[in-house]
Amino acid sequence: MTSLDDLPLRDDLRGREPYGAPQLDVPYALNTNENPYPPSERLVKALGEAVMDVAGTLNRYPDRDAVALREDLAAFLNADTPGVGLTAARVWAANGSNEILQQILLAFGGPGRTALGFEPSYSMHPIITEVSGTRWIAARRDEDFGIDPARAVAAVAEHRPDIVFLTSPNNPTGTALPLETIEAVAGAAPGMVVVDEAYGEFRRAETPSALTLLDGHPRLIVTRTMSKAFAMAGTRLGYLAADPAVLDALLLVRLPYHLSAVTQAVARTALAHREELLGGVNALRRERDGLVAWLRGAGFEVADSDANFVLFGTFPDRRRVWENLLERGVLIREVGPPEWLRVTIGTPEEMAAFRTGLRQSRGGTAPHTPRPDSVGDIKESQ
Amino acid sequence: MTSLDDLPLRDDLRGREPYGAPQLDVPYALNTNENPYPPSERLVKALGEAVMDVAGTLNRYPDRDAVALREDLAAFLNADTPGVGLTAARVWAANGSNEILQQILLAFGGPGRTALGFEPSYSMHPIITEVSGTRWIAARRDEDFGIDPARAVAAVAEHRPDIVFLTSPNNPTGTALPLETIEAVAGAAPGMVVVDEAYGEFRRAETPSALTLLDGHPRLIVTRTMSKAFAMAGTRLGYLAADPAVLDALLLVRLPYHLSAVTQAVARTALAHREELLGGVNALRRERDGLVAWLRGAGFEVADSDANFVLFGTFPDRRRVWENLLERGVLIREVGPPEWLRVTIGTPEEMAAFRTGLRQSRGGTAPHTPRPDSVGDIKESQ
Repeated sequence: MTSLDDLPLRDDLRGREPYGAPQLDVPYALNTNENPYPPSERLVKALGEAVMDVAGTLNRYPDRDAVALREDLAAFLNADTPGVGLTAARVWAANGSNEILQQILLAFGGPGRTALGFEPSYSMHPIITEVSGTRWIAARRDEDFGIDPARAVAAVAEHRPDIVFLTSPNNPTGTALPLETIEAVAGAAPGMVVVDEAYGEFRRAETPSALTLLDGHPRLIVTRTMSKAFAMAGTRLGYLAADPAVLDALLLVRLPYHLSAVTQAVARTALAHREELLGGVNALRRERDGLVAWLRGAGFEVADSDANFVLFGTFPDRRRVWENLLERGVLIREVGPPEWLRVTIGTPEEMAAFRTGLRQSRGGTAPHTPRPDSVGDIKESQ
Repeated sequence: MTSLDDLPLRDDLRGREPYGAPQLDVPYALNTNENPYPPSERLVKALGEAVMDVAGTLNRYPDRDAVALREDLAAFLNADTPGVGLTAARVWAANGSNEILQQILLAFGGPGRTALGFEPSYSMHPIITEVSGTRWIAARRDEDFGIDPARAVAAVAEHRPDIVFLTSPNNPTGTALPLETIEAVAGAAPGMVVVDEAYGEFRRAETPSALTLLDGHPRLIVTRTMSKAFAMAGTRLGYLAADPAVLDALLLVRLPYHLSAVTQAVARTALAHREELLGGVNALRRERDGLVAWLRGAGFEVADSDANFVLFGTFPDRRRVWENLLERGVLIREVGPPEWLRVTIGTPEEMAAFRTGLRQSRGGTAPHTPRPDSVGDIKESQ
């Protein structure tokens, strides 16, 4: 039998493991930052009808540039962040923000070039970077998972990366960056600056989007996704806003007809139903803030979260906590800094199961600074 | 205003133009090798229902490995080419065969590596190769657009490429390769050998698929697409068959969750309706063979075609012929060797429009060896 070792795989890929959270069938899947609220019956019907509308011409290639979809996405961003005045000429879409990031790396990275990110952050950034032949430079976030602007500028000045990643709100920590940090990095960076706002719609009111910085920063790119707030992870639709010249660059590396006619139709239908889909965002925000308070009350360390997940700790043996929860049907994510765990915000019922599971599995797995008496006193938020 | 020149684009991409056939709205679109037969009402309904079935869980990520779809694709290939005995472990899928090819390049190509193809061939091969940082080596096809096995082996021995592309049936020439050529190259190549069978289902009975060579050739990859014979260009579903170890390699470079739940559902529904969808293949083959005979009878040079298009010539000024046809509402493709044009096989009505347009636009654009009297005498095949 042939094994991977027998094949002429790229040398720098040897020994790697494929990316991937386990796809386990559990009662409470709180591991991949999915939105727990499924589309309504009405939307399900609308999605089916939208596909029927295009299915009669599926023998033809789709609109290669997805213009109508990009117009709809621009309209959404203009509503999400008033005043940015975006048009389709400044918005680009692809199969998930992973493909958006890959196109950016292929256009502006590559052999002999570098990309810098502040870790812990989204683990696909270094993977997509290195698969594109670009060298990854890992800078560190601060102790509180923020990024001090002066330190960030110093890192950029030292390494002169071709691409800088700023994830805000950051995955897996949940922390958002103030605009000053992003502006400072954008001012100092010699190359492109990518602000990954996959969780942007969950941010708290006081945290503005980097979309407001696009004017005057032609090397700034803000990426978004419909996987999280829009509850469309299964649709795979990521997008970005940037200067039109950035789109000219991406056209050189994108695969022609990369977005199917079906994906375009489904995403446009979801955007037309955005009131319903985004309706869950406020509920998830409240649930998140309640969980943060509960965890802190129970003596855990908790990172500030502007996202639909919470990073909490610290555990001398996080694997044991993760396993104890899984035994109770609650799947969370073992990711990020070694003594922390990440839990996705689900429905009130799912979060109650998580809290119960965490309480039950706590024996011997107390956080470093336990306040054991307080755990039983916490009121459930539902 | 910022222009692309102001951005830190990869140096080797500077000056390039984006790939793309014009997407013009014309009565007779015979330029991108689409299948002219749209899905039936029944299939349109089934596709809409399939999407409704998955739409209720679109808030969740899709099956990252698309196992059920790969099982269905394996079953199709086993029916298409009896005896190959494929399973999901040897079949992989992505958003169009372009993404399949990109994954192959990212896994087995890259900086310091080379890919060799025999031109003229599919123009995305060198583009995807170079965008991945791999160096492209252009070998030539023979005068008749075939590839002499001894010459091919010599080219492989000379350049020792990490990847060899063999397109069969070849785009834009239509010519298929005998298995002996593929076997000779696979035996000589030090790296991977990719047989691009995008048009495989249109091949003539005497031309077997390279799928029959997979056993015993662990570095051989056969790629296919649902865009052509399956009349699903708008769905973007490409796939490959290869040794399971090849899939292990691709898992290292694929973007996680690259195939949406909707794409998986639509493709599976199309495969379940394959009798209908592939029903047009025989009609297109007959139309193609009729067109080849008509063109030859009219004094044109015509490449042998095992595909759903025909390359014909030769024209001292092919641009003028292309424009004359476009004025008559017939859009064909100016591609391939300089004095040739490519026309996609459409419905009998579309081909009649093409023939009429070609006759009318012939003044001054006669092929190099004109037999002007014969043109008017050719019987329409419909």
